[in-house]
Amino acid sequence: MKKIDHIGIAVNDIDEAILRYQRLLNSNCSKVEEVASEQVKTAFFSVGESKIELLGAISGESAIAKFLSKKSEGIHHIAFEVDDIYAEIERLKGEGFTPLSETPKKGADNKLICFFHPKDTNGVLIEICQSIR
Amino acid sequence: MKKIDHIGIAVNDIDEAILRYQRLLNSNCSKVEEVASEQVKTAFFSVGESKIELLGAISGESAIAKFLSKKSEGIHHIAFEVDDIYAEIERLKGEGFTPLSETPKKGADNKLICFFHPKDTNGVLIEICQSIR
Repeated sequence: MKKIDHIGIAVNDIDEAILRYQRLLNSNCSKVEEVASEQVKTAFFSVGESKIELLGAISGESAIAKFLSKKSEGIHHIAFEVDDIYAEIERLKGEGFTPLSETPKKGADNKLICFFHPKDTNGVLIEICQSIR
Repeated sequence: MKKIDHIGIAVNDIDEAILRYQRLLNSNCSKVEEVASEQVKTAFFSVGESKIELLGAISGESAIAKFLSKKSEGIHHIAFEVDDIYAEIERLKGEGFTPLSETPKKGADNKLICFFHPKDTNGVLIEICQSIR
């Protein structure tokens, strides 16, 4: 793992949360993007080499809507940047971790992404991601 | 905020979690440290400019023991590095955020730290920290 790419935070009202995190981080939101395939609206803030990603649901079908109804607002996942996502999926499977998809998917922020089940990582939903060149 | 200093993860069995996160991150734990004042055992892994901090309780009085009994294993807090923790506490109080102590405390990893209440930050417990020179 090269670095923490971002920390994803699930929020009920993303527009309100953007204003709140601008005050918290003392910086402006750098990008807002909807990911139709996941039914989420995302907002990114840069902090050092990493980002904070706010995640709001844009329909009840979104995984974020399900997370918010089952748990509550809070940290949803940690994403680590890797050089070769295909090789890293194989390495992690070999170590006994459980990918949530067999192949990477297209995520926000021009990335290939793959999630791993939190049951293997002390309750933490892990994402690995690689920038699409 | 200069960077994400670390992400704190509360775990039931820290020795088992250290082995697990070594396999996940493909790197060795860089430091294990007990913080007697907080009744926690901590273990750090470097990832880029940030760290993953595993947190285990060493007594039932620990805030981590209370977190684990109320919630379950998972992400406990995000810590941001700042240049001047005293100035940043004042700035954040002025923005309406709620410090959990009026002055910084001595934390793990040779840091001055201050937590802020998660009610103001969409359920996320925020720490700010500054290295002690």
